[in-house]
Amino acid sequence: SRSLRLAVIPGDGIGQEVVAEGLKVLTAVLPADVKLETTEYDLGARRYHATGETLPDEVLAELKQHDAILLGAIGDPSVPSGVLERGLLLKLRFAFEHFLNLRPGKLFPGVDSPLAGNPAIDFVVVREGTEGPYVGNGGTLRTGTPQEVATEVSLNTAFGIERVVRDAFRRAAARPRRKLTLVHKNNVLVHAGHLWTRIFQQVASEYPEVTTEYLHVDAATIFFVTQPERFDVIVTDNLFGDILTDLAAAVTGGIGLAASGNINPTGEFPSMFEPVHGSAPDIAGQGKADPTATVLSVAMLLEHLGFTAESAAVEAAVAADLAERGDAVRSTHQVGDAIAARVSG
Amino acid sequence: SRSLRLAVIPGDGIGQEVVAEGLKVLTAVLPADVKLETTEYDLGARRYHATGETLPDEVLAELKQHDAILLGAIGDPSVPSGVLERGLLLKLRFAFEHFLNLRPGKLFPGVDSPLAGNPAIDFVVVREGTEGPYVGNGGTLRTGTPQEVATEVSLNTAFGIERVVRDAFRRAAARPRRKLTLVHKNNVLVHAGHLWTRIFQQVASEYPEVTTEYLHVDAATIFFVTQPERFDVIVTDNLFGDILTDLAAAVTGGIGLAASGNINPTGEFPSMFEPVHGSAPDIAGQGKADPTATVLSVAMLLEHLGFTAESAAVEAAVAADLAERGDAVRSTHQVGDAIAARVSG
Ligand SMILES: CC(C)[C@H](C(=O)O)[C@@H](O)C(=O)O
Ligand SMILES: CC(C)[C@H](C(=O)O)[C@@H](O)C(=O)O
Repeated sequence: SRSLRLAVIPGDGIGQEVVAEGLKVLTAVLPADVKLETTEYDLGARRYHATGETLPDEVLAELKQHDAILLGAIGDPSVPSGVLERGLLLKLRFAFEHFLNLRPGKLFPGVDSPLAGNPAIDFVVVREGTEGPYVGNGGTLRTGTPQEVATEVSLNTAFGIERVVRDAFRRAAARPRRKLTLVHKNNVLVHAGHLWTRIFQQVASEYPEVTTEYLHVDAATIFFVTQPERFDVIVTDNLFGDILTDLAAAVTGGIGLAASGNINPTGEFPSMFEPVHGSAPDIAGQGKADPTATVLSVAMLLEHLGFTAESAAVEAAVAADLAERGDAVRSTHQVGDAIAARVSG
Repeated sequence: SRSLRLAVIPGDGIGQEVVAEGLKVLTAVLPADVKLETTEYDLGARRYHATGETLPDEVLAELKQHDAILLGAIGDPSVPSGVLERGLLLKLRFAFEHFLNLRPGKLFPGVDSPLAGNPAIDFVVVREGTEGPYVGNGGTLRTGTPQEVATEVSLNTAFGIERVVRDAFRRAAARPRRKLTLVHKNNVLVHAGHLWTRIFQQVASEYPEVTTEYLHVDAATIFFVTQPERFDVIVTDNLFGDILTDLAAAVTGGIGLAASGNINPTGEFPSMFEPVHGSAPDIAGQGKADPTATVLSVAMLLEHLGFTAESAAVEAAVAADLAERGDAVRSTHQVGDAIAARVSG
């Protein structure tokens, strides 16, 4: 019998609630011969307040021993902005070389987009996850004074860009429409932008079957709302990817449905799957949160670990649930139960 | 009799066409006792190809002698990305301390938004124009090799942030809804983000009548499409402002309508008014471009120079034109003529 060692980080706010439903669906869909071993890690605002720790080294070492990580949401207003984001979430992405931050943007049948006419949206954003303005390089001078200066340094390497651009081309080549859009701002951020553009063009020459285009990030946001159907695969840097994937979630029915994978494709480190949404403290503990984004993240986790049929079953169950959902108000549990029932049946 | 010395930079592509209509409306609306003296400057792709120059020092010195600048659009695919943007457009914004980059987001009656239900949108984005990731600080190492490293440095100063934040608070306090939203990404870009947040909170204490909120840039994009009516005044950094204002243009009917002012509020340097859209080489020279964004930029120019009634007349003429526009296809000239006729009548 096989085993799946899963580290679970429910985190803060609605994280706890949605992760429970994700695990419910995972348990229901896994083949009988797969032994699911979950270890829950108490990380986030509670631990930070109790011990001052965000991600101790021992915990990082333990997490590394798992096949994958399922994360709910991190963050609470009681913790200064950046402490948990930089000290926990981004620390995991960087330590485990999650350079492939994969975020599908799909408008499921039955889901209403805020865009008039519900356009046919089905793309995936390949967001670089370990470089760019996210590296945490920068500082302040004359801090707290009227003469303060603050810097943020975006670091970009040919190595780091090439590995994610190659993944995006492979992905685009395997999809029916075979189209890849590079998004950057190479007319202003000329150093980083030209490096991205050069590598993109070099790899493109190995994929003549893939149609390519380049868009500045500002223009890309326009097309996200006026012609989202034009996108197939999008590859972009860490910060632009952050912005575009929230916008993608918005036009495909909201962050209640947006899944993501922080993937280390080499398998050297465990990959981590999480909904795009945050901890939503305003609705935490009320059983109101939509667990669908977490369930779709579980589908990505299954796909990543080679459970292709099970991944497809979860996505199909979600699609069926969404198609019938209508305006009914259901609790977090009810949505999880309904999807779990579909994959077991 | 008074005089208005206007420097005109038609620029590239449709820039020429839309600026002609902007000047037509300006001429029609100005009081009879105002002598309009325009000087046209040949800057952009043509000049760059002919002489290698983007913005010679003598031209910069001449431009400085004007009351204001009207700019069409800069950029052409024949010029390497960044050359004209950094060497001309951004050079002007930086040299003339255009720290206030003002971009209204308004859905006019009769205009269709791509958002379902045409929400009531009427906000203004106050984009910082002289700092942040736009400063051009950065470089490359091992350029062109597989070991290349590229950096972009975002520079932010208390001085630079305070002056634009103060302007935003003044603006918010003068509007009926009195609401100001700060947009940044202070949970990741902690150095710059915390500086912005600190200054925002300090100035806020002087404006108790203004309701304030903070949004991360990714969350802001969601609200731009799901609840755009929640925004009144938004203040943000140079790059986030670039992205958000294209998105704002998209949800308010397209960049054919989006105006902007690059303003030096102290009056030490001339302010510059330009449509948000680019040079659109694909439709240049065909008389298809919508000059409305340029005409609305002329309204901002008039307001800035103290021609308040004339500014209001232009905006009212545009509003009336838009309300009656329907699906009729009109040429660039026809739209300009129609609006000019309304302000003269
Ligand atoms: C919480 C934050 C650090 C994170 C990010 O910016 O990447 C989030 O917005 C996301 O998109 O996963
Ligand atoms: C052309 C480009 C340099 C410019 C910018 O990024 O500011 C444009 O996108 C704008 O918004 O005015």
